[in-house]
This record gives sequence, structure tokens and C-alpha cells, in this order.
Amino acid sequence: MNTSPQLQLLLTGNELMSGHTVDSNSAMIADWLNRRGIEVTRKVTIGDSFTGLVAELDLLSSACDVLIVNGGLGPTVDDLTAQAVAELIAEPLTEHPQALQHLEQWCEQRRVVLNAANRKQTQLPTSATIVPNPSGSAVGFSVEHQGCLIICTPGVPSELRLMMEDSVLETVAERFPGTDCLSTLRLQSFGLGESSLQQLLNSECPDWPKEVELGFRAGLPLLEVKLSTRQPHHSELQQQCYLRLQQLMGEFIIGPDDSTLATAVVEALAARGCQISCAESCTGGAIAAAITGVAGASAVFEAGFVTYSNSVKQQLVGVSDESLAADGAVSEAVAREMAEGAMARSGAQYAIAVTGIAGPGGGSDNKPVGTVWIAWGAAQTLRAHRFQLTGSRAHFQLMVTAISLDLMRRELLGIEGEPRYFSRY
Amino acid sequence: MNTSPQLQLLLTGNELMSGHTVDSNSAMIADWLNRRGIEVTRKVTIGDSFTGLVAELDLLSSACDVLIVNGGLGPTVDDLTAQAVAELIAEPLTEHPQALQHLEQWCEQRRVVLNAANRKQTQLPTSATIVPNPSGSAVGFSVEHQGCLIICTPGVPSELRLMMEDSVLETVAERFPGTDCLSTLRLQSFGLGESSLQQLLNSECPDWPKEVELGFRAGLPLLEVKLSTRQPHHSELQQQCYLRLQQLMGEFIIGPDDSTLATAVVEALAARGCQISCAESCTGGAIAAAITGVAGASAVFEAGFVTYSNSVKQQLVGVSDESLAADGAVSEAVAREMAEGAMARSGAQYAIAVTGIAGPGGGSDNKPVGTVWIAWGAAQTLRAHRFQLTGSRAHFQLMVTAISLDLMRRELLGIEGEPRYFSRY
Repeated sequence: MNTSPQLQLLLTGNELMSGHTVDSNSAMIADWLNRRGIEVTRKVTIGDSFTGLVAELDLLSSACDVLIVNGGLGPTVDDLTAQAVAELIAEPLTEHPQALQHLEQWCEQRRVVLNAANRKQTQLPTSATIVPNPSGSAVGFSVEHQGCLIICTPGVPSELRLMMEDSVLETVAERFPGTDCLSTLRLQSFGLGESSLQQLLNSECPDWPKEVELGFRAGLPLLEVKLSTRQPHHSELQQQCYLRLQQLMGEFIIGPDDSTLATAVVEALAARGCQISCAESCTGGAIAAAITGVAGASAVFEAGFVTYSNSVKQQLVGVSDESLAADGAVSEAVAREMAEGAMARSGAQYAIAVTGIAGPGGGSDNKPVGTVWIAWGAAQTLRAHRFQLTGSRAHFQLMVTAISLDLMRRELLGIEGEPRYFSRY
Repeated sequence: MNTSPQLQLLLTGNELMSGHTVDSNSAMIADWLNRRGIEVTRKVTIGDSFTGLVAELDLLSSACDVLIVNGGLGPTVDDLTAQAVAELIAEPLTEHPQALQHLEQWCEQRRVVLNAANRKQTQLPTSATIVPNPSGSAVGFSVEHQGCLIICTPGVPSELRLMMEDSVLETVAERFPGTDCLSTLRLQSFGLGESSLQQLLNSECPDWPKEVELGFRAGLPLLEVKLSTRQPHHSELQQQCYLRLQQLMGEFIIGPDDSTLATAVVEALAARGCQISCAESCTGGAIAAAITGVAGASAVFEAGFVTYSNSVKQQLVGVSDESLAADGAVSEAVAREMAEGAMARSGAQYAIAVTGIAGPGGGSDNKPVGTVWIAWGAAQTLRAHRFQLTGSRAHFQLMVTAISLDLMRRELLGIEGEPRYFSRY
């Protein structure tokens, strides 16, 4: 039997039961707790029914030491968490002064009038302890019930995230003494599949130490690799494994922690004191938006061109009549001219240009949906490559953005040779 | 008490507990069952532990009439579902001839040798009924246990989908006679908070019929409103409520189903046969990317300008020295000149221009982080407004994009008057 404290999750909301919403909150909660070495042993999801909620709270709180409840704190009639917890612990709902103060401030900042629906959110069980909500109108709260700490959190992901960071993680960790030594190192990579990486590890590191737990998370477009240890005296071993992994993965590594392709490009440009410009057709501004999404991007980014039509390609970035007539808009010549034009008209030393067919319409036999030409580099090093992608319009735009940024990253870091994905797409 | 049959889900897998995988299977199952009028009343997720799995199967099967188990049918050692079900119903695992035949065919088609790991998937409880798997190597199966039908399905989403379509939905529906009539209408809205909407409904529709269930989902940036009925003879009532809600929400409605601000703008432009251009500073291309993310955007969008620096604002869209010097880059004059320049240089009849301070750096006393000027409209109708937003850089960019698109939507649809959020931001 497991004698360490048990933590369970209770998620509420009809939208989670009906299939209209995919629950990402519980994965976020579990991921954060995991980084602190705390395991979620069970999670239960139910709809917005008062009696169902009370019964479930009763069942779960008697089966674990910490119960995190997510959802049902909002102002509408289907938000029943406070009411159900009050029923469970046989306390009345009363207006909590701290919750009211928070709500008044929240309304004042937004210049909205505090209405009765909002005011419902200040009605909490008498013994509730407030869990501050740095961004939303509804505070969280916790109560003790028969040895179980019940923490109620909001369903809005951004509010939940801030609340977890702000206080919930610490509160939970206090109930799990001795588990705060999970140490995790994370690496972001691009261009290497999960199974290829596993294969590489099997053949190159057959003696991988079991004290260093290896985890993968295949996101889109990055693959995250995690190395975790649970004992402080394994940290040196962890460092060795981390270095080994960095050697193995080499050029595929984008960076540590929450690095993205865009942060890698912005950092590499800043290190060189250079600037970049983009000319985008099929991605429609997504590459520029990714770059300018990085804080401090203004040091490396001045201008971007979204050139959807042929005439705009000519006018804004000086694509030639000849290339458009001879090769069409989706061609190497046009991609190169777009990149050259973007550099010439912005004064940037580097450019990315993309022209392709995002679909669902617009394809032909020679250039089916998913065809894209990417040009990247500086004036003297400009290269171009044709890719053939599959999937939806959104997937195409996401992948073209990712590949373009990765090609520019490789250029800026002086990585030689073709990336492996040239043969895949 | 609810006396209709109860259906619950049990999801298994360590990856679902650790936060490494976001569960989308349960939403898929629930969505399909919902369309047949069958409600999932509860779902439980646990990791890959044999004793935990047996205990949970015991608990759930005694609490419901149909239990769908998802995951744990694969070839690896952590796939324990068949073993746990056999333990629950006190039957041995035996090689099931039909499962073996399926596996042999599966291997033959893929020209792979049937190995021991795969063969494990043919070991099922003696009384199991096969649920065919049209695409994967592991068949599903069902057993009866103390009045509960337990159906075990694979965790691979594509296999689950085919299996649901192929037979599981029908099998389940037989246990829920007369429930194939849940009907849901959905509306997307922007600019009206959940609590304001609830308040509006409370005051304007105090007699809302209980047969039409009302649900909200506060996303970022849209608020979804749903109306559901469970009886075919309530569909007229549902339609009446839907019309009532449309009247109440009026200008805040973006559209039905999966409408977004960008699809609304693209549709409104297409209906007028007009085009739009964007000049973006602080959103760095995100508005153009949102518009061009809509299939068919090429009919209404030709050109976008990402003008990050002052010199580029002058060069690309003709912002004047005078305005920059007198008012600074984040000003009404510059926003207006950006919009005018975007129209003049692209030939579009409409433009959106934004200039602001996304942060975290770059703020001042007069223009703190979060300040933004948005200009929108046609040459003759151009307006501009200053907003003050809070939150992270990403949140700022998301909200500025959303507000800009909504302002353009209102302009195109001829909605008069200021939106309520002018006083909020």
C-alpha cells in the first residue's frame, strides 16, 4: 500500500462532459505538481449537478489528503462549487469580506459596475481561506474537511495558471514533505521524431542510468525532452546525462526550458547585432507574429510584408513580372525575389520569404495543396527549398512557420548540412 | 433521483496522469454519445496500476449501467486492461480465436512477423465479446458484470474513432432506448462578460424554460453560449429561446457554431466584395495571420504591413515626420496615418492599424505598457480609439487582435454606437 499523501483532482463542468471542451487544465495541474515531485493519483470529472457534486466531494475527500477542485467558481447559475462545498462541510454561505474587496478592486480597474451575478462569487463557506486570483474576478478558496485539504480553483486556464504559480503549488507542497527535490532539466528540440530519438538513445546510451528518468512530450512543432531525478545526490549524474543528451541531439536542440524557435532566432540575431525581415504569402503574417511575440524583438525586427496577391508581391517587395509569368507565384524565383525585396526595402541583413498553397483550395497537379517554397538567409547566402506538407490549413501554416524559423536559426548558428526533414517533407 | 441508465468512462494511462498528454479521447467519446442523446455522467482517470485498475473497475461498474474503458489494450507491459477485467470478473485470460485471427490478418497485411508482445493482445477474459478494431492490432472487447456492460476500447485516437463509429455507438444506444434526441445550438459572442450576460438573462428572461438548458464557456477571447434540449418535442421551444437570445445579445453575437472574429470579418468583407489591409506595430502580424488563417481569405486580403520601427512606419505606410515628432509612435495621428497608408498602398477599401506598447519594456508615465491606439474603417469612416490593456505580452497581443477584428466587424455590419468595452479598457 502507498502510505504517502494522496492527491486527487475533481473537474467540474458540463462542457467537459459533453465533449465540447477538451480538458487541458488537469494536464497543466499534473505537470506542475509533477515538477515538484507530487503525483496525481486519480482524477474525476463530472457535470454541473449540485447533488452529484456534493456526493463526489464527499467520496473523494474521504479517499485522499489533498483534493484540488477545478471549475464552477464563476458568476453563472451553473457554477456550483462554493455551494456544494458549503453543503459538504455543513456551513452556510456568507459574503467573504476579502473576496468582496478583491471583486470591488477588480471591477474598479475595469470600470465595470459590480452586479448581483458577480457578487455571487463572494459567497463562500464560513471557514473558507481565500486563494488569491491575480487576474480573474472569482477568488479561489480552500477548506479542511475530515483531514482532507480541499482547494477550489477557477476553470479559466489563464487564471488557474497564475493561481497555481502564485500560491496553490506552495500550499500543496507543504502537505507533501520531502518531495520537493524532484529536479527536472528540460530541452526543446525540432526536427527529430520521438521514435528516432528513442532509437538513438537505445543504440548510443544502452547504459542510461535508471536514476535519471527520461521523458518526452511531443508538442507541435517542438519535442520536449526531460531529465528528472528524485534525489539531490543524483544531480551530478543528471548533469552528465544532460551533457550526453546535448551532444547526441546537437543541431536539433532549440534551447533549454521554454525556448521556442522564435526565441532562438531572436537571440541569435541579437548576438550578431543583425536584423531580419519577412515576406509572407501563405503564412499571412504568422512568421512575423511569432518573432514579434518575443519580448525584445524590436531590437532585431523592423518590418514585415504580407504579400498575398501577385500584384502586391510586385509592388511591396519588387517581385518581377518575368518570374511570376514564367514560374508562377509558388516558385523558387519568386521566393528568392521576395526575400531580396524584403531585405532591400527594410534594410535588414536577413530575410525569410514563403510562398505556397495553404489550401483547402488553390492546388494543381504540379503544385498541389501543401506545396511551399521557402527562401532564407542573407543577401550573399540566400537559399531556397521546396517542401510538400500535409494536413489542414492551420497545420500547414504552423509547420511552414516552424520550418522557416528553424532554417534561419541554422543559418545564424552556422550549422552546416541539410536538416533531416528535407527528405521528410 | 435520475433513473435513466448511467454511463461512465474510465480512462487509463500514466501519460494522462503526468500531464504529458492532454486527453482528447474522452471529449470525442462524449461528443459522439451526446449527439445520440446519451450523457456521460462521470469520468475517472487513473494511472497504469493493476490493483488500482481492478479497484476502480469494481467501483465504477457497480455505479453505472454502461462503463466504457479507454486505454491499456496495447502490447506493452503497462497495458493491463484485459488482465484487470479478468480479475474483476474472476475469469482466466485465454487466447481468443477471433482476436488471434484478426491479429494474424493485421500482421500479414503489414508484412510483419507476429511477435510475443503482439500476441499478448489476444489474451482476453473467457466470456469476452470481441469489439472489432478496423485499423489497429488490438481488438476491443466487452463483458457483462453484475448488470453493467463494460466495453474496453483502445487509447489510440484513430482506432477509437473507427471502433466507435463501427459498433460501440450502436451497442451503447441499445441500452439507452429513446434518448437519441439531444439537440444543441451554439453561439459565439465577444464583448459581453459571462456575468453581464447572466444578469441580462436574469432580468430579461426570468421565465426561461427549464427544458432548454443554458451553458456558457468563457474562452479567450470569445464567450460561447449553448442551448440544449433533450426531447424532440422541445425543439420549437429551443428555437424560440435561441431567437430570444439572439435579440438579447444582438451586436455581441459573432456567429453560430465555430465562428471566430476573423471568420466574421472575412464573411462581411466577402459579402460586400471589399478588401482589407493591416498595418501592425505591436501585434507584429497577428491580425493579418488571423485573417489569412480563414480559408478563402485571399478574396478579401491582399497585403499587410508589419511596421515595427518609426522609419519603417514612414517608409512602408507613409507615416509623417510631423506626427511622429509631435505625438510619438503610439498616438492617434500615427494610427490613422498607418491605416490611410495601408489602404493607399494596397488598394484595399478598409484597413486596421494598431500601434502600442506590448511590454514588458517600453512603457512611460504617459504611455504605460498596455497602451494601444487602434484605427479602423474605410477612408471616409476612419476612426481611432485608445485602449489600456493589462496582462502579459501574449495577452496584450491576443486582445488587441480580437478588439481590432471586432471593431472592423462592427463597422462592416453597420453596428452603431460604441461597444461596451470602450469603458472597460
